[in-house]
Amino acid sequence: MADVNRTWVLARRPHGTDFTGALELSDGVVPELAEGEVLVRNALLSLDAGTRMWMNPREDSYSPPTPLGSPVIGMVLGTVVASRHPDFRQGDLVRAYGQWSDYSVCQPDVAYAERLSWRLDDLRQYLAVFGPNGWTAYLGVLEYTQTKPGDTFVVSAASGVTGALAGQIAKQHGCRVVGITGSAAKCAWIVDELGFDAAIDYRSEDVSEALARLCPEGIDVYFDNVGGDILDAAMANMALFGRVGICGLIVNYDKDEPIPGPYKFDQILMKRLTLVGFFSPDFYHRGPDVDRKMRPWYEAGKLKMEFDVTEGLENTLDAYAKLFNSAKVGKSLVQLEELRP
Amino acid sequence: MADVNRTWVLARRPHGTDFTGALELSDGVVPELAEGEVLVRNALLSLDAGTRMWMNPREDSYSPPTPLGSPVIGMVLGTVVASRHPDFRQGDLVRAYGQWSDYSVCQPDVAYAERLSWRLDDLRQYLAVFGPNGWTAYLGVLEYTQTKPGDTFVVSAASGVTGALAGQIAKQHGCRVVGITGSAAKCAWIVDELGFDAAIDYRSEDVSEALARLCPEGIDVYFDNVGGDILDAAMANMALFGRVGICGLIVNYDKDEPIPGPYKFDQILMKRLTLVGFFSPDFYHRGPDVDRKMRPWYEAGKLKMEFDVTEGLENTLDAYAKLFNSAKVGKSLVQLEELRP
Repeated sequence: MADVNRTWVLARRPHGTDFTGALELSDGVVPELAEGEVLVRNALLSLDAGTRMWMNPREDSYSPPTPLGSPVIGMVLGTVVASRHPDFRQGDLVRAYGQWSDYSVCQPDVAYAERLSWRLDDLRQYLAVFGPNGWTAYLGVLEYTQTKPGDTFVVSAASGVTGALAGQIAKQHGCRVVGITGSAAKCAWIVDELGFDAAIDYRSEDVSEALARLCPEGIDVYFDNVGGDILDAAMANMALFGRVGICGLIVNYDKDEPIPGPYKFDQILMKRLTLVGFFSPDFYHRGPDVDRKMRPWYEAGKLKMEFDVTEGLENTLDAYAKLFNSAKVGKSLVQLEELRP
Repeated sequence: MADVNRTWVLARRPHGTDFTGALELSDGVVPELAEGEVLVRNALLSLDAGTRMWMNPREDSYSPPTPLGSPVIGMVLGTVVASRHPDFRQGDLVRAYGQWSDYSVCQPDVAYAERLSWRLDDLRQYLAVFGPNGWTAYLGVLEYTQTKPGDTFVVSAASGVTGALAGQIAKQHGCRVVGITGSAAKCAWIVDELGFDAAIDYRSEDVSEALARLCPEGIDVYFDNVGGDILDAAMANMALFGRVGICGLIVNYDKDEPIPGPYKFDQILMKRLTLVGFFSPDFYHRGPDVDRKMRPWYEAGKLKMEFDVTEGLENTLDAYAKLFNSAKVGKSLVQLEELRP
C-alpha cells in the first residue's frame, strides 16, 4: 500500500470561482487505516456547489469551514480496497463522504458511508437520480414545498442536476413546470428533452416579466437553487399562500460575507408565503425509500439526466469552476477510473 | 338621521409617521343605507399598524391602497343604529371593518362584520384577547410556527398587543419566553406583569448579543412583528430547524418602497429554517373556536392586557402615531362613546 495518493488540499481561501492557487494537488501516500475506517478507491467524485461554501472562513454555514491545509471533502463513489470496519468489505461499492483524492478514508460510524448494489444500469445515477440530488429534488417537491397536482411550479438552475430532477418530478406529479436557466440551448434541453412546459433564459430575458407572463395566476411553488436576483423575481410573482423551497443559494457561496435577502422579502407577509430551507444530509437515511418511489419513473424514462464527466483527478478544478459558470447541464463528475464489480 | 358624521379621509399619501395633513377630518352627514348595509355607531376604533400600509400607493401589499379622498378603513366596535341586513338589528353589538368616523357603514356580505355577545367582563377585549390580535397570537404560536412545549420562544414588539399575547400564550404552552421591546419600563412590564422569562431593550442593548446570551441553545421560534434589524438579529441566533413567524414588518409600513430582507437571509438554508407569513383575515372564521380555547387562560388571569385609550375621534392621529413611536404598551384604542347594551 505504498501507492501514491494525490489529494486536493485547501491551501488558501479562494476568491470567487478562481480555485487555482487556492487548491493544490499534493502527493502523499495511501494512509494506514485506524480501527473503524474504510479505504475507498475513488472512481467518481461528485461535484457539488455546497463544497464551495466550506472553503470560506464563515462560521455560520452548514458545517464548520474546511481548515487550511486539509483535504477537500466531497461525496465519492468507489470500491472498498481495505476495511477495518465489520460492515464494509473489499470489493463493496460505496458512496460516502470522502476526499477529493485518489483514495478516500471513510469513517462510517462518524460520517455518511453506504454500501450500494452493483445492479443499476448506470452506476453514475448513484450520484444523480438515486443519490442526494435526487432525494433533495423528490422531498423538496413533495414534502418541503408541499407541491400539489395542478400547481404552477417554477425551478431555478433548471438544467443543473437537482433543478432538472425537481422539474421532472413536479411534472410527474401533475404540475405546470417552468424552468429558469442560462442559455437558449439549456432552455431547449429542459423543454424538448425533459418535458418542462416552458423555460426562461435569465441571461437574455427579464425574469420577473417572463414569470408574470408565464405564470399569470402566480407561482404556487418556487424551488430555488440560486438566490439573488432570480429569487427576488420569483418573490414578486408568488401566488397567495405560495411556498418557496430554499434548496441552494449558489450566488452566496463564493462570497466571503452573506448577501441580503430578497428586496421583495415583505411578500412573505403580503402573500402569506412559506419559505423553507432544506439540506440533504438531514434525509440521507430516507434515501432507500425515496429511491423506491422514483424507480418506476426512472424505468419509464421520465427522469432523464445528462452527465458532464471530466477525466482525471488533476482536472478537477476546471470541472468545478463550470458549476459556477453555467458551462454545463446535468450532473458534474470527475472520473478517476472505471467502476466495475 | 341628519346627524353629523365626521370622517378621517386620506387626503394625501403620508410620509413616515407624520399623518398631519395627510389625513383630514371631514364633516359629513350620516349616509343613507343601501340594501344589505348596516349603520354602526362607533364606540371604539382599533388602531392597527397594518392600516398604515394601505395609505401607501404600493400595489403589492395585502390589499389595494386606499384611494385618495376615501375614508380610512379599520376595525371598529359599536352598536347597530340602523340596518337593512336581516341578520343585524338595532342594538346589536358589532365588530366590523368600518371607517374612522363617528359612524361606520358596514356591508356584512362583502366585508367582515360579526355580532357579539354583550356578556364579556371587559368589552374592549373584543379588540384584544378575543379579537384579531388574540387570534393571530394564538394561531401564530400554536399553528403557523408549530411551537412546542420546551421551545425557546422569542417575540418582538413584545409589549404591543399581539406580541404580549403571543408571549403569554407561549408561556402557557410550556415555552421559555424572551420578549424584545423598547424601554426599561416595557421590559419590566412583560417580565413582572406578564410573566416573560426575560426581556431585551432594543434601544439600549445589542439585540444579537443579548439573544446569544439569553438563548445559548438558539431560538426555536421567533415571532416577528417588526422586521428590519431585529429580524436580522434573530436570524443570526436561530436554532437548527427553527421557525420564524412573520406576523408584521412594521419597519416597512411607513416606507414607500419595500426594504430588503435580512442580511442573514441565508440562515434559512444553513439552519434549515421555516419562515411563514400570516394575516388575520385568513382566519377570522376561526375566531369563535380560538376564543373558546383562550377563555380558560383569560379567566385564570394568564392573558393580561393593558389598553391605551385615547378619547375623541379628533385625537385619532396622535394616538395612531404612538403605534410607530413605541410610546405605549398593549392595545391602542380610540374611544368615541361608552359601550353599553
